[in-house]
Amino acid sequence: MSGVHEECGVVGIYAPQGEDIVRFLYYGLLSLQHRGQEACGIAVTDTGRDELDVNCIKDLGLVSEVFSKETLAALNGNLGIGHVRYSTTGESVRENTQPLVLNYCKGKLSLAHNGNIVNTDELREELIRTGAIFHTTMDSELIAFHIAKNRVHSKSVEEAVYKTAKKLKGAYGLVIMSPKKLIAVRDPFGIRPLCLGRRGKTYIVASESCALNSMGAEFIRDIEPGEIVTITEEGITSNYKLKQETKAHCVFEYIYFARLDSVIDGIKVYDARIKAGELLYKRHPVDADIVTGVPESGIAAAKGFAKASGIPFDLAFHKNSYIGRTFIKPSQSERSIGVQMKLSVLEEVVKDKRVVLVDDSIVRGTTMENLVKMLKKAGAKEVHIRISSPPFMYPCYYGVDVPSNKELIATRKSAEKINETIGGDTLEYLSVEDLQETAKGLMICTACFTGEYKAGQKSNDNEG
Amino acid sequence: MSGVHEECGVVGIYAPQGEDIVRFLYYGLLSLQHRGQEACGIAVTDTGRDELDVNCIKDLGLVSEVFSKETLAALNGNLGIGHVRYSTTGESVRENTQPLVLNYCKGKLSLAHNGNIVNTDELREELIRTGAIFHTTMDSELIAFHIAKNRVHSKSVEEAVYKTAKKLKGAYGLVIMSPKKLIAVRDPFGIRPLCLGRRGKTYIVASESCALNSMGAEFIRDIEPGEIVTITEEGITSNYKLKQETKAHCVFEYIYFARLDSVIDGIKVYDARIKAGELLYKRHPVDADIVTGVPESGIAAAKGFAKASGIPFDLAFHKNSYIGRTFIKPSQSERSIGVQMKLSVLEEVVKDKRVVLVDDSIVRGTTMENLVKMLKKAGAKEVHIRISSPPFMYPCYYGVDVPSNKELIATRKSAEKINETIGGDTLEYLSVEDLQETAKGLMICTACFTGEYKAGQKSNDNEG
Amino acid sequence: MSGVHEECGVVGIYAPQGEDIVRFLYYGLLSLQHRGQEACGIAVTDTGRDELDVNCIKDLGLVSEVFSKETLAALNGNLGIGHVRYSTTGESVRENTQPLVLNYCKGKLSLAHNGNIVNTDELREELIRTGAIFHTTMDSELIAFHIAKNRVHSKSVEEAVYKTAKKLKGAYGLVIMSPKKLIAVRDPFGIRPLCLGRRGKTYIVASESCALNSMGAEFIRDIEPGEIVTITEEGITSNYKLKQETKAHCVFEYIYFARLDSVIDGIKVYDARIKAGELLYKRHPVDADIVTGVPESGIAAAKGFAKASGIPFDLAFHKNSYIGRTFIKPSQSERSIGVQMKLSVLEEVVKDKRVVLVDDSIVRGTTMENLVKMLKKAGAKEVHIRISSPPFMYPCYYGVDVPSNKELIATRKSAEKINETIGGDTLEYLSVEDLQETAKGLMICTACFTGEYKAGQKSNDNEG
Amino acid sequence: MSGVHEECGVVGIYAPQGEDIVRFLYYGLLSLQHRGQEACGIAVTDTGRDELDVNCIKDLGLVSEVFSKETLAALNGNLGIGHVRYSTTGESVRENTQPLVLNYCKGKLSLAHNGNIVNTDELREELIRTGAIFHTTMDSELIAFHIAKNRVHSKSVEEAVYKTAKKLKGAYGLVIMSPKKLIAVRDPFGIRPLCLGRRGKTYIVASESCALNSMGAEFIRDIEPGEIVTITEEGITSNYKLKQETKAHCVFEYIYFARLDSVIDGIKVYDARIKAGELLYKRHPVDADIVTGVPESGIAAAKGFAKASGIPFDLAFHKNSYIGRTFIKPSQSERSIGVQMKLSVLEEVVKDKRVVLVDDSIVRGTTMENLVKMLKKAGAKEVHIRISSPPFMYPCYYGVDVPSNKELIATRKSAEKINETIGGDTLEYLSVEDLQETAKGLMICTACFTGEYKAGQKSNDNEG
Repeated sequence: MSGVHEECGVVGIYAPQGEDIVRFLYYGLLSLQHRGQEACGIAVTDTGRDELDVNCIKDLGLVSEVFSKETLAALNGNLGIGHVRYSTTGESVRENTQPLVLNYCKGKLSLAHNGNIVNTDELREELIRTGAIFHTTMDSELIAFHIAKNRVHSKSVEEAVYKTAKKLKGAYGLVIMSPKKLIAVRDPFGIRPLCLGRRGKTYIVASESCALNSMGAEFIRDIEPGEIVTITEEGITSNYKLKQETKAHCVFEYIYFARLDSVIDGIKVYDARIKAGELLYKRHPVDADIVTGVPESGIAAAKGFAKASGIPFDLAFHKNSYIGRTFIKPSQSERSIGVQMKLSVLEEVVKDKRVVLVDDSIVRGTTMENLVKMLKKAGAKEVHIRISSPPFMYPCYYGVDVPSNKELIATRKSAEKINETIGGDTLEYLSVEDLQETAKGLMICTACFTGEYKAGQKSNDNEG
Repeated sequence: MSGVHEECGVVGIYAPQGEDIVRFLYYGLLSLQHRGQEACGIAVTDTGRDELDVNCIKDLGLVSEVFSKETLAALNGNLGIGHVRYSTTGESVRENTQPLVLNYCKGKLSLAHNGNIVNTDELREELIRTGAIFHTTMDSELIAFHIAKNRVHSKSVEEAVYKTAKKLKGAYGLVIMSPKKLIAVRDPFGIRPLCLGRRGKTYIVASESCALNSMGAEFIRDIEPGEIVTITEEGITSNYKLKQETKAHCVFEYIYFARLDSVIDGIKVYDARIKAGELLYKRHPVDADIVTGVPESGIAAAKGFAKASGIPFDLAFHKNSYIGRTFIKPSQSERSIGVQMKLSVLEEVVKDKRVVLVDDSIVRGTTMENLVKMLKKAGAKEVHIRISSPPFMYPCYYGVDVPSNKELIATRKSAEKINETIGGDTLEYLSVEDLQETAKGLMICTACFTGEYKAGQKSNDNEG
Repeated sequence: MSGVHEECGVVGIYAPQGEDIVRFLYYGLLSLQHRGQEACGIAVTDTGRDELDVNCIKDLGLVSEVFSKETLAALNGNLGIGHVRYSTTGESVRENTQPLVLNYCKGKLSLAHNGNIVNTDELREELIRTGAIFHTTMDSELIAFHIAKNRVHSKSVEEAVYKTAKKLKGAYGLVIMSPKKLIAVRDPFGIRPLCLGRRGKTYIVASESCALNSMGAEFIRDIEPGEIVTITEEGITSNYKLKQETKAHCVFEYIYFARLDSVIDGIKVYDARIKAGELLYKRHPVDADIVTGVPESGIAAAKGFAKASGIPFDLAFHKNSYIGRTFIKPSQSERSIGVQMKLSVLEEVVKDKRVVLVDDSIVRGTTMENLVKMLKKAGAKEVHIRISSPPFMYPCYYGVDVPSNKELIATRKSAEKINETIGGDTLEYLSVEDLQETAKGLMICTACFTGEYKAGQKSNDNEG
Repeated sequence: MSGVHEECGVVGIYAPQGEDIVRFLYYGLLSLQHRGQEACGIAVTDTGRDELDVNCIKDLGLVSEVFSKETLAALNGNLGIGHVRYSTTGESVRENTQPLVLNYCKGKLSLAHNGNIVNTDELREELIRTGAIFHTTMDSELIAFHIAKNRVHSKSVEEAVYKTAKKLKGAYGLVIMSPKKLIAVRDPFGIRPLCLGRRGKTYIVASESCALNSMGAEFIRDIEPGEIVTITEEGITSNYKLKQETKAHCVFEYIYFARLDSVIDGIKVYDARIKAGELLYKRHPVDADIVTGVPESGIAAAKGFAKASGIPFDLAFHKNSYIGRTFIKPSQSERSIGVQMKLSVLEEVVKDKRVVLVDDSIVRGTTMENLVKMLKKAGAKEVHIRISSPPFMYPCYYGVDVPSNKELIATRKSAEKINETIGGDTLEYLSVEDLQETAKGLMICTACFTGEYKAGQKSNDNEG
C-alpha cells in the first residue's frame, strides 16, 4: 500500500539514577521511523544538574539525517523525549517539528504528540479569548498551552495535564517532560498506541513495543486508554484517570502502520496479519499455485493465506532498497517505470503459475494495476488479488493522513469495477466483521471503512 | 572601535495601492546591515488577497546570505516588515531571529524590535501568572504577547499597542504588522531612532534615514518619542501618544552606530562627527603634521579635527575589505597580525610625521595599541590619540551590546595609564559636555559614560 | 553478509535517433545502486549538436542524493555513461569519482570502470617514463591515458581501446564514450559481468540485466569475455576481440553481489541461489521445523534449502529499512544493539522451533553470532547454520573489497571453532565443487575461497 | 572602476627548519584576495616526514569561506603554495581551481599560476600529439604537463621548469612545489609581479609585497623578469635565467589591481597613484572647491590631484561594506539603485560645491553616470571628471579579464561623447605618456590602451 501515512511516533525515557539516555532515545526513534519520515527531534534534560535546562535538536529529515555522531554526543541527560513525524509534500516546515520546548510558570515544559485532536477550534478559541499568541499551527502547541494555563491553579503538573486531557477530543499519545517528571497520556478511546517498559531502573514510554526491544528494554504493559502515567525519581504513579469511553483502537495499526514485531494492547501485530490472511482465504478461497504478498505491506497476510489454504507461499518480488526519496517522473509512455524501479518480479517464481497476490489495502489503485501487469508480463497465468482490509472510503480524523476522497478509488468504484481497472482475475476484500476478528477481544475504530467516528469528528488534520 | 555592537535595525513598508514592496524591504535591510550582522528576516503580506497570509524568511547570516534571488522572488506583498540583528558569539540561535510572526485573535501579528526592554521580568511575570508559554527568550515575544492580550479588550490593534507600550520600560523602536496595518512605535525617551518616509504613495518606517535613501524614498520626519504611528489604506494617523518623558536620545548613534549619511532627530550624523572632531581640537590642541582617523569609525571626526586645526587630513591606513568573519588566531608571538590583516599603514603618508590619530572610542585598548605600534614602525615621529567620546565605563541597558566591565579598559585605568599601555604620545577624550554639544539642542542619554540611566535600569540584555 | 563490498557498476546508453537518454541512465544507476553506494555520476553528450560537449555531474553519495529533479533536468543528450561506486570508509574523495571526462586528441573521452586492474604499476610506469601527470589514484585514469596514447597511432578509438585492453591485466567492465561512439569492453576472463540491451533503436550496456529491466529495455546478450563492442549511429559492431583466456567468472556475483532478478552469462542469479540452497541440504541435511534466511542475503538460498528438504520456509526476521548509514555505537554492554536495530526476530515464527538459518557467507562472524543469540532468546530450540558458499579466506584482486585477512574469521578458525564462537547447533558450508555446480557450465573464479588467481595477482586495490 | 578583473594571486612558503607555515599561507591569501575572489586553495607538504604527501584544500569561494578554523587545523606542513582566482560569472567550476596537485615521475608536483599564456594552442598540440589527456581547461595544467615531460630528461625539476618556461609565451608568475623544493618563475617581460621575502629562516614568494607584510615578513627583492628561483633546505639559488626581453610591466597593477600598500618592481603603488593624480591636474587643471575620489579606486589619485592643485581633498561618498555578492536587480525605473546601495553621497561635503571626481578608469560608463547624477542631486554645482588612465580600448591577453569590446564605452565613443552620456561638466583622461611617467624608469605594457602587445597576442583567456 502506498498513499496512506501514519502521523507520528513518540518516545520518553527517564533514568532516575542518572544514566545518560540519549542513545536510547535515538534507538527508539530509529525503530519508530516507520511511523513518520518527515521530521524528528529529541529534547533532553539532566535532573541532576542545579540548573535544569533542556537541550533540543529537531529538524526536517530522517533520524539518520538529523542526528549525527557529533550532534548526539552534544546532547546528554537522564530524562528526555523524542518524536518522529510523517512525510507529506509541501506543508512540511521547520517550525512544525517536535518536541515542543517551552518556558512556562514552572520552568521548561516539553511535549511530543502522536495523534490528532478534533476539537482544536474550541481549544484555540478558549485561549485566544484570553489574548494568547501561537507560533505554530500544531495542535501540540494548543495542548501545551492549556497545560500551562491549568498549571497555574493546579498543585502539580500531572493535575494540569489531567485537567487539559479532560478537554481534549480525538486521538493522542502524549509524552510530556517537566523539569523532573516524565508524563505519558493516552486518549480515553485508546486510538493511538502507547506502552511502558523498563531497562533496569530506567523507564521508557513509547508508541510501540518495538522501540522497547530496540534498546534492550522489557515490555511492562500498555498505557491504558485514558490513563495518565507519571514517572518521577520515586518511580511510576498513575493517579489520574480520564473518564472511561468505549474503546476504539485504531485497527490500521494492526493492518499496516505498526511494525510487524510490535505488540499493541495485548495483540501481536504479526498474529493479527496472519489471521487476516487466514480469514481472507476462508471467505474468498481460490485455486492457485502460489501465494505472494506485496513487500512489505502484504507479506504477513500472504503467509496467513498460504497457511489456511495450503497453497505454497513464495516471494515473487525483488525490492530495490535504495529508492528512498528518489525523484522519478517517467514520461507518459513510461508510466509503469516508477513501480518497476521499486519492485521487480522474479520470473522464475511466477511463470506459468496461478498467483494469489495479497496486500493490506488499495488506495488509488495505480500501484496494484502495475503489479498485476508486471506479474502477467512475467508469465503469471492468473492473478487473484486479496486485500486484508475492507475498502478504504472515509477520512481519518485521528492522526492518519489519507488522500482526499476523490483520490480513494473505493469511494468511486465497486470492487468489481476496481478489479476491471486493475486487471486482476478476481479481487476480494476482508469484511469489517472479519477485520474485528483479527483483533479479537478488542474494541476497534473502523471509521475509515464505515464512517462511524466514535471519538468525534472534524477539523484540522494538519499534524501528527 | 571594535567590541561594541548595535543591537538591531527595523524597517516597515506599506504600499496601499498594491505595489510589491519586497525588494524595498531588502534594500532597506542592506542599508541597515551595519546595525546588526548576526541574523535578518523579512515578513510580508498582500492586503489585496482574500486570504491574508504572512510569508516570512529569516535565518542567521547577513542579508546577502539569507536572501538569494530565488528566495526574494518567492516572497511578495504590499505590506511587510524586516529586521537585522547584531552579532555576538555563542548564543545566536535560529529561534531568536525576527520578525516574529504569530497567530492571535485577529489573525496574524508580526513584529520586529530594535532596542531593549528593562522591565522584562515584570512583563513576563504578569503573563506567566495567567499560564502563558514562551517559545523564545526574546523580549520581542513578551511585547507581542502583551499586545495580543490587550487586543482582546481594545477596539483596535493600535489601542492594544498603546496599552502595551504604556507598560514597557526601556528602549524600543517597533514595527508591527497586523493584517491590514503597519504600526510604528518609538519609546518615550526617544532612545532608539525611528523615522518615516514615503515613495509615491508607499510609506516607509525605518531605524535610519539611510534606509529611505536606499530605496529612493524621501524623508518625511522622525517618529516622535512616545508616538504610535498607524499606516492604513487611508494613510497615516497618529492618534496615540505615550506620556512625555525627558528625552534621552542615544548619543552613540551619532558617535558610532548610525550610518554617516543618516539624519536622526534633526541632526546629521556627519555634522555631529565633524563637530566632535572640531571640539576635540579646541579642547585638546596639538601641534602635528597630519590628522588621520581609524577606518571607518574615526574618519569623520578626524576631518573635523583637521578642519578646526588647519592640520592636513590624510588617509594613513589601507583597509582589507575581504576579512569578513575570517578566523585569525595568531600565536602569541604574532599577536599583532590580527590588526595588520585588517589595516595596513601607508608608510608614505606617515613617515617622519607627527600624527594625530582619531577614533570614536577605546573599548579594550588592544586595537589602538597595535595601531600606534604600526604607525611608529612606519616612521611616525609622534602619535597623538584623540577620542571623539568620553571614556566608556558603564553597561548599556538600552540595546547596545558592550563587553563586561572587566573588559572595558576605562573602568580600570585613567586616561594617562591607558595612554601608557597604548604607547601614544598623548591621549585625550571628549568630555560629556562637549559630547552634548555635538548633538546641539537634543537631550541625550549618556548612561554609558556617566552611569545615569534615565529610562530605568536592569536585567536581560540578550536581545535586539 | 556484511563486510564485503562490490566495487562498482556501469551503464552506457546511445540513442542514435536523438532521444534524450538521461533519465534512462538515472534509472539504470538506481537499479545498479547495490553495486556501489559511495559515489555516482553521469556524463552525457548530444551527438546532434555542432559543438560536441560533455556535461558531467558526479559526487560522493547515493544516486538519490547526487541527482535531484533539477540537476537531472540540467543534463540532456542522446549518448551517455554512468557509474556507481562502492562505499568504504576514509579514503573516499571527490577526485576519485567517475565517469572520468577528459580532453584528448580527438575531443572528449569519457570512461567508467567496474573492476580492478592488477598490473597498474607497469601501466603507470610506462606512462611516467614519458613524462605523464596523474590527477587521481584511479586505475581508470591509467586506462584512459593509455587509450589516448594509443589513439595517436590508431585509425579509430576502438582500435586504441583494443591496443590498451591487450595490456590490461585483471578484471574490468568498461564503458567508454568518445564524441560519437559508445564502446564497451569486458576482460578476457569475463570476471566482471557486462551485458547488452535495446529499447527500440536505443542501445544499452550495463553491468547487470536488471538495469535493462529498469528502463523497459530488452536483454540482447552478454558482452563476451574479451569482446570490444562499438555502438555508433550505424548500430553495433564488434570487430575487436582480445585473446581468449580460460574463463573465470566471479562466482560472488551469483552468491551475493548481483541483484536477484539479474541474469549473468546465461545463468539466472535467482536459480543459482536456489540451487546453492538445494545443494546445501543435499550435502548437509538436518532435521528441523523451519528454514529461514538472513535478509536479504540468505533468503533465496533458504528457499532452495526448504524446497529440497521439504521443511517449511518462513521469514523469521523483520528488517528496519530506515537504518541507512546510521551511526550506532553501543557501549560494550549493549553490543548486540547494532544488529538488533537492523533486524528483529518474529518470535511467533521461531518459538519452540528447530531453525535452519541460511546466509551467503560469514565474514567476521559477529553478525551471525548476534542473530543466533536473538533466535535463541526468541525461543528457537535449535539453530542450524548453513552457508551457501565456502569459507572466505583470500583477498580478491578483481574488484571486490574485502576485509583484511586478520578480520576474516575463516582464516583463523575451522568451521567447528567458528560454530563454537557463534553458538549455533551445527554449521556447514557449501564446497567449492558444489559452488561450481550452482553456475553449471560456467568457468568460475574461486580465488577468494581457494587462492587460485587465474587472472593474475597483486597490487593496488583502491578502486572500482 | 568596475568591470575589469585581475586574474589571480599566488603565494609560496618554505620553512626549511620545519615550522608549520599553513597560517602564513592563509594570511598571504587573505591579503591577496583583491586579486581574485572566485576561488582559492592551499597545498602543503611536510618535508620532514618520510612519506612525502601533499594535502590540498581548494574550492570556489572567498578565502574566508573556503577555509575555516577546522580545515586550517587539518592542514600542516613546512612547504606550501596558495592561490586566489578571479570571479567571473558562469564558467567558474570546481575543476578549475588551483593549486594543481599532480603525480609525476618524481612524486607530487604542485603548481599555482598568476597570468595568462598566449601560445596554449601550440603547447597543447605538442602534448596531444603524444597522446596526452587533460582534466581541466586551465593553462596551468599545460604548464605542469610540460614540466613533467621535461623532467624525464632533466637532471632537476628546476631544469625541467626552465625548459618549459622557455616555451611559454605570455604572462606568468608561477609557484611550483616539488617534494622538497619551492620554485618561483616570472615571465621574461615581467608582466605579472612576483616578489621574494623572508621571515627568519622562512622564505616567501608572493604576487605582491603586501602579502609579506601580512605575515610579518620582510621584503627581499622582486623576482626578476625571466628569473627562476629555487628554494631548498640549503637556501635560495637562482641558476636559471630566461632570455632577456624588453620589459613590459603591467601598468594596470599600479593603476588598479595591486594593493595600495604594495611595492612592485621598485615603485610604490601609492606613489604611482598620487603621481597620476598630480599629472591629471597638471594636464587638465580645473577651478573647483573640492576634490574627491570614487572609493576605493579613485581615492589615491584624488589625493594627488588635490596636492597638485591645492584644492581641498574630501571624502564625498559613504560606502556600504556589506553589499558583497548581493543580488540587486532593480526594475527599469529604479536603475540607479544598484549604485546607490553601494555608495551614498554625503550631502554636506558636496552641496553648492564645484567637485572634481577622480577615478582610475571608465569601463562601461554606467557607474560613473550614476555617480554624477547622485552628486548633482546632492547639490554639487559642477562635476569635473578626471580619469587617472587613458581610455581603455583593447583586450588584455596577459591575465586581466576585461569586458568584450562592445561593452567598452571608449571603443565606441570619444571622450567628449562619453562625457555627454555621463553628464559631467568636463571629462579628461591621463595620456599614455603621462601614465609612463607614473611608473618612472619602468618599461610598461600599455596594450589595453594602445593595442601594442609586446609579449605576443591571442587565444584562450579563460584562466588566471
